[in-house]
Amino acid sequence: MVLYLIGLGLGNVEDITVRGLKIVKQCAKVYLEAYTSILCYGLETKQLEEFYEREVIIADRDLVENLADTLLEEAKDLDVALLVVGDPFGATTHADLVLRAKSSGVEVKVVHNVSILNAVGCCGLQLYSFGETVSIVMWTENWQPDSFYDKISANRQHGLHTLCLLDIKTKEQSVENLIKGRKIYEPPRYLTCSEAASQLIKILERKSEMGIIPAYDENTKVVALARVGWDDQKIVYCTLKELSTEVDMGPPLHSLIIPGPQTHPMELELLETFAYKK
Amino acid sequence: MVLYLIGLGLGNVEDITVRGLKIVKQCAKVYLEAYTSILCYGLETKQLEEFYEREVIIADRDLVENLADTLLEEAKDLDVALLVVGDPFGATTHADLVLRAKSSGVEVKVVHNVSILNAVGCCGLQLYSFGETVSIVMWTENWQPDSFYDKISANRQHGLHTLCLLDIKTKEQSVENLIKGRKIYEPPRYLTCSEAASQLIKILERKSEMGIIPAYDENTKVVALARVGWDDQKIVYCTLKELSTEVDMGPPLHSLIIPGPQTHPMELELLETFAYKK
Repeated sequence: MVLYLIGLGLGNVEDITVRGLKIVKQCAKVYLEAYTSILCYGLETKQLEEFYEREVIIADRDLVENLADTLLEEAKDLDVALLVVGDPFGATTHADLVLRAKSSGVEVKVVHNVSILNAVGCCGLQLYSFGETVSIVMWTENWQPDSFYDKISANRQHGLHTLCLLDIKTKEQSVENLIKGRKIYEPPRYLTCSEAASQLIKILERKSEMGIIPAYDENTKVVALARVGWDDQKIVYCTLKELSTEVDMGPPLHSLIIPGPQTHPMELELLETFAYKK
Repeated sequence: MVLYLIGLGLGNVEDITVRGLKIVKQCAKVYLEAYTSILCYGLETKQLEEFYEREVIIADRDLVENLADTLLEEAKDLDVALLVVGDPFGATTHADLVLRAKSSGVEVKVVHNVSILNAVGCCGLQLYSFGETVSIVMWTENWQPDSFYDKISANRQHGLHTLCLLDIKTKEQSVENLIKGRKIYEPPRYLTCSEAASQLIKILERKSEMGIIPAYDENTKVVALARVGWDDQKIVYCTLKELSTEVDMGPPLHSLIIPGPQTHPMELELLETFAYKK
């Protein structure tokens, strides 16, 4: 039988493709991958189940460790679907699962969908001209990694834009709950554009202190994006400083783009329509 | 009223999203953008019209010049849809149309879909680790540009993969038909992976003659992709030389990836499942 990997797109139940929906309705079992909170993507299990008219099994952190085993075992006798927010080969690759399926002799079919990696084209920047994508993690007092800086810097040196995916923390446990082994989780947290901008400015200061000429400064104009593809999508073109201090992008999910040093006139013209201060 | 830009995904009529299909059925007029032959993407107008139960107006080269005017004029009074293969902000940006809509006071809504830019993740290479995308044009005897070489080279220097989109020529006119002003077009032609590989090897030879150490050689392993997302999708991992001389990827559309010099072990493991010579 077949293991289907089906992309759900950007967070509206109706963003699934017609083909994807048909397959979901035919599969014997339907799993929804939820490494990160699906609520961040605007999806609720009940809403999905009503739309699909099918039971949807949430593969959250507790289940995920054994998910591949379960899927591959079941797919020997049944058609099984794994639903994935975005595209199955988008921000999270499912290479491991596909490899294991191949070696178990389970056929895998993929139903692609849009991922944030190409949806950000809506701001006007050419997807052609993006360099390596980076992930910005949520800093704590004692853990402030900045390895993404070098990638942003290299992209800018080559005139390329950088898409920054912002951290999501779900199913965190308080120290007390962790010690006591209680499966009680803190509410999900997500890195906002403003927080990411503050971190980027902080890195800037550190580089300057080290005598390094930074790849950008606090007046560098960036593109903040929130809830891309949703009805209340928000895009703001502003300086890093404005983003860190004044601009509120609202509810999650947020993404951030550091454009290359030269933007094409046509890119710029569309960006300017999203300008914070016109 | 609203001008909808609706992505059709990778070439199966059912690759439209549920939301996209709903909108198409509601719009007063439905246009299909066909700068390039939609047949290359496996779509036929009649098939689309049957699926949508709507008339679909083909915006081919003759219409395209005035398309924006038509769409914006009509969208003042009607809901109008422009269907686009892939994602509306994928390989071709619709920035110009969006800009003109904004200045005419026409509301634009976008229904995203997968584009080849993220669908290629199915070969196992991390989309994160791609650099700038390049377009490889079809060489003629007297016109053999190679500016994409520098971009591939820069990407490889930074350990990044390069997606090469391959040229499509549609609605070419013979010199005779052009002179006589006859709108008779040659059959569409598309650059194959093998032809692109031959061009890349030719560039290699030129660079060597100039004393430049090339960024890759004919034994560099590349990823050839054909008909991504279709039932007969084909992926082959082989050397540039094998691709130029032995490997036949079949019907269009083809894409080519030049991986970075180091591939992650997990990437490599999945690539190896597509190996030409196992």
